[in-house]
Amino acid sequence: MGVLLEQIDGPEDVKRLSTSQLKALAGEIREFIVRSVSKTGGHLASNLGVVELTLALHYVFDFKHDKLLWDVGHQCYAHKIITGRREGFSRLRNGDGISGFPDPGESVYDQFLVGHAGTAIATAIGLAIGQAKQNHEDRIVAVVGDASIVNGVSFEALNNLGLVKRQLLIVLNDNSMAIDATQGAVAKYFSRIRLSHTYEDLRKTTGNILEHMPVIGKGVEEVIERIKKSIRMVLPASQMFESLNIPYFGPVDGYDVGSLIQLFKALAELEHPAILHIYTKKGKGFVPAEEDGRRFHSTGPFKSNGDAIKHRNSGKRFTDAFGESLVELVENDERIVAISSAMCDGTGLSRFRSRFRDRFYDVGIAESAAVDIAAGLCKSGLRPVVAIYSTFLQRSFDQILQEVALQNLPVVFAIDRAGVVGSDGPTHHGLMDIGFLRMMPNMVVVAPADAVEVRLALEFGLSANRPVAIRYPKDFVPEKRYVRAACAKPFKLGEAVFIRRRKASRIAIASFGSVLREAMEAARQLKDEGIEVDVINARFASPLDRRLISLLENGKGLVTVEDHGLACGFGSAVLEAVAGDSERPVERRIAMVGAPRRIIRHDSRASQLAKCGVTAGEIAGKAKGLLSSVELRV
Amino acid sequence: MGVLLEQIDGPEDVKRLSTSQLKALAGEIREFIVRSVSKTGGHLASNLGVVELTLALHYVFDFKHDKLLWDVGHQCYAHKIITGRREGFSRLRNGDGISGFPDPGESVYDQFLVGHAGTAIATAIGLAIGQAKQNHEDRIVAVVGDASIVNGVSFEALNNLGLVKRQLLIVLNDNSMAIDATQGAVAKYFSRIRLSHTYEDLRKTTGNILEHMPVIGKGVEEVIERIKKSIRMVLPASQMFESLNIPYFGPVDGYDVGSLIQLFKALAELEHPAILHIYTKKGKGFVPAEEDGRRFHSTGPFKSNGDAIKHRNSGKRFTDAFGESLVELVENDERIVAISSAMCDGTGLSRFRSRFRDRFYDVGIAESAAVDIAAGLCKSGLRPVVAIYSTFLQRSFDQILQEVALQNLPVVFAIDRAGVVGSDGPTHHGLMDIGFLRMMPNMVVVAPADAVEVRLALEFGLSANRPVAIRYPKDFVPEKRYVRAACAKPFKLGEAVFIRRRKASRIAIASFGSVLREAMEAARQLKDEGIEVDVINARFASPLDRRLISLLENGKGLVTVEDHGLACGFGSAVLEAVAGDSERPVERRIAMVGAPRRIIRHDSRASQLAKCGVTAGEIAGKAKGLLSSVELRV
Repeated sequence: MGVLLEQIDGPEDVKRLSTSQLKALAGEIREFIVRSVSKTGGHLASNLGVVELTLALHYVFDFKHDKLLWDVGHQCYAHKIITGRREGFSRLRNGDGISGFPDPGESVYDQFLVGHAGTAIATAIGLAIGQAKQNHEDRIVAVVGDASIVNGVSFEALNNLGLVKRQLLIVLNDNSMAIDATQGAVAKYFSRIRLSHTYEDLRKTTGNILEHMPVIGKGVEEVIERIKKSIRMVLPASQMFESLNIPYFGPVDGYDVGSLIQLFKALAELEHPAILHIYTKKGKGFVPAEEDGRRFHSTGPFKSNGDAIKHRNSGKRFTDAFGESLVELVENDERIVAISSAMCDGTGLSRFRSRFRDRFYDVGIAESAAVDIAAGLCKSGLRPVVAIYSTFLQRSFDQILQEVALQNLPVVFAIDRAGVVGSDGPTHHGLMDIGFLRMMPNMVVVAPADAVEVRLALEFGLSANRPVAIRYPKDFVPEKRYVRAACAKPFKLGEAVFIRRRKASRIAIASFGSVLREAMEAARQLKDEGIEVDVINARFASPLDRRLISLLENGKGLVTVEDHGLACGFGSAVLEAVAGDSERPVERRIAMVGAPRRIIRHDSRASQLAKCGVTAGEIAGKAKGLLSSVELRV
Repeated sequence: MGVLLEQIDGPEDVKRLSTSQLKALAGEIREFIVRSVSKTGGHLASNLGVVELTLALHYVFDFKHDKLLWDVGHQCYAHKIITGRREGFSRLRNGDGISGFPDPGESVYDQFLVGHAGTAIATAIGLAIGQAKQNHEDRIVAVVGDASIVNGVSFEALNNLGLVKRQLLIVLNDNSMAIDATQGAVAKYFSRIRLSHTYEDLRKTTGNILEHMPVIGKGVEEVIERIKKSIRMVLPASQMFESLNIPYFGPVDGYDVGSLIQLFKALAELEHPAILHIYTKKGKGFVPAEEDGRRFHSTGPFKSNGDAIKHRNSGKRFTDAFGESLVELVENDERIVAISSAMCDGTGLSRFRSRFRDRFYDVGIAESAAVDIAAGLCKSGLRPVVAIYSTFLQRSFDQILQEVALQNLPVVFAIDRAGVVGSDGPTHHGLMDIGFLRMMPNMVVVAPADAVEVRLALEFGLSANRPVAIRYPKDFVPEKRYVRAACAKPFKLGEAVFIRRRKASRIAIASFGSVLREAMEAARQLKDEGIEVDVINARFASPLDRRLISLLENGKGLVTVEDHGLACGFGSAVLEAVAGDSERPVERRIAMVGAPRRIIRHDSRASQLAKCGVTAGEIAGKAKGLLSSVELRV
């Protein structure tokens, strides 16, 4: 570790340094981040980009009282390092280490447990209004990336910035690249600004801002007028924000820590909201990440030259199975198009994009619009596949219901990261998709158990003539094929597959999706104890296979298994079907395995599944519990 | 009916008229709308505003092939009248009549069943891309209001308009007033534009546009350059859209049908997206509605002078009970603030707003940001009450989970229009809120049964120190107090109220919220048949009162009753609790009353409840069904 960094136990230590020491410290922090992340994995490129910004912010503000909001939050490592959490980086994103996102449970320097894009400005507005109402003087800073500011929530917030009549600084951290290459009008606007000036201009801008800064105590309009006069001569960058009545300063160099400090000192005194536009670079200071920001957005362990260190368990992921299947299927059907919301790589669509560029649409971080655009594509006769992580699809709940389900449009939703997601933690789990989707009329909810089923599910979805949601986890597909011929059967609406049938069995295990692995292992364990059980690969959470209910009617006990919240999940759907099944409900015996309704911290996916009780052992235990109850009765 | 209107059986009849005839027809349509809506109720102000626009669109385009998308859709009456649905207006929004929103089930002239704001541009983008991909030449027009274009989904779509490389016309219908007075930067921008010109300028603009129109076949950038040169001299209105790279034309007069026709003819030939900004007036032509667009946004029957015709059943609504309670409670607690998303009147907050203007925030149609702003307010120490209809709160699912529930912030959600909503129909039902809320950690979900309970629930929510959602229907509070002292007990976390207890009862009815009325009536009917039942006012869907489970353990049958989908609702929560209750599940007997998972058409709320089986008769029937099953067993 660097000599300066060793002495930084909190932001007060940063405040003591000179500008040249801050520059040196930035270098040490960068080294520290690269070394740490090379061992633990984590978000790299975004964090290397904002080291100087972080130092300048902590130099000027006192975030024990002032509020610092990181949008998305995947750029908070330098912030964590200098707020007393340096040691935690050896176990970053591990169950016994610190989180990769801001977390108020970890530190008073963090405000919100965040992870989704576009929320910082809106929450900052609320904080600012609240501060003003209670006559608090604490200053508020929200740092928002260029990819995140185009999100609908960001825009709704920008449109409401006028509600704030006091200081609120938005730092627009423009690294001219989202996770995937940014697309869209605002990105083009930023890129036009970028092209309209030289590096020398950036320095002039800083000087200009500082020179014209005695605008304290003036209203927004007057400030905007002064900025126009002073800065517009240099750069015509303020047009968009001006039309929204937001005082805009910049763009300036995000690595000139001395200038940043001067600017923050001046901007902190404004008595109204303002935007400072700064330029940074993803991966700054680590050549492999500068060259491939996308790969180093979120990375596993890597060597000093940037080469990935292969994980022992690596193999084919569900994501890969989806991407490969789609590329194959698309050859036979000209109507198929794919939509991504700034997650082309993450959702396995890279190969699709490069092979079928004219059938691929990335709408940026705009999950709501993505679904509505899909609805329009569908209505025109195409067959869109919308690939969005389960957690981000929560942003599209209303659009899926209104524009897709109510119209009964055959949009296919490829829902990656369904279930617990491992190291990203609470903000990224996909534990609610079965619930919010199965409430909708017309919607079909399926889950494939392995790679073959991913393809079968996709084939089914593309020919179903109604909306179909396909969920699968952030995990490898099972190496072992539990299922031979039976599983290769095409998906048929509402039809489960009976994987294992035992004559003497008194218990059936019905699993939904990839947890078939755990279900089969439970069956094996039970067999070792002399207990035979059936195993059913449910395939559908909605509509359900009525044979599941028949099993119960025939007196069998049923254990449902899912990688989803117990509330409103697959097991819950089974319970509802049973309760609604007849005019005269009779006794049924069901036990459910799934995630409890509580916050599940960052950890390995395997540990999280274990903590949720989604393991072969728990399933076997539930089966035995049911069995004893069944035996008591018969 | 007017002589011209009589002859209009379809858009082809409109195309045959002269400009002066079109003007006369507009007057006749206006009269027709006012007369119809005065009898049936419906959306008035928005529909009167766009009659000339509608005629001009149908005059120029052929919407049997071309696609017309009305954003929100509450301005489609003139469109329906001239597309063969005039007769249907006598039963507008009634079960046997036409819908108040576009509905493809009614007519080929409607594209999407819509009702929520901000979706037209995004769906139009999808349609346009699909048309281009399949070499269809059909033209596409999306009509979006100034209140709706500030919504996050609209903005995400505008940011992605560059995906479209063919014709797509967006008509920005600027009536300078949303349902409630528009607030926000974009509204102020539009109002600055409005103030910057005279009526004479509008005429000049039209001339200028038409003069400089030979821009066909040019790229977007070139068109923007030409527009700048030609129009900017007159009006500096294009700044915002220019920065988004969207060719912007206007503003022009929305009542000059001749000019509109010329403009549409010209704009229809553009080979890229464009925006035409037109001025209209809510309520145009009917003085009471011009003067009070808010009251006539959605109205019941009224007299020719605009005075409301009082409904026989009128009384205090749940909405009123909420509004009154909040005004009373706020006096004792300085921390309480209220947030509305463009629905101040609809959510009963008008009195609060006028009395506590500095504690009320209307963020416009921006439900997502509303919740995040509330989270910020809460974090600063205030106690925000967010009042949003159940159906629109679907837009905030992700924000409620991420920024509120995961942080365990004590935001109170006042969820009006929970349950079936009557005449607005499928897009407006609130049948999913219990489901999507009860999946979230920390979230409390309650429902008051009457006016007294609305206040008690609110008191509870404001003191709970965790997020609390309070749901109630678009209905009158019950006149009869089923509940005496018992019900006046303060809400206590997870505690139900036993309203009626009978020693000999073998069945209990557990109702959630306003359906206590139906539950009590069912108990009365059953008593007439000699069957005694308990009735429980559950109050909480999450967390549940464990005594509900104990009842079952003691061998009673339980009927759950709710005005919500059966999927993932209150009854489902009871089922889950039972299944998860013990290591050794035993037999239980539960029947559920609630809405099925299908599309429930516009109708009276009472009819919809009846169709869903949420009636005293159905409850009694379920109880008897259970009873016979219980008897069989014992």
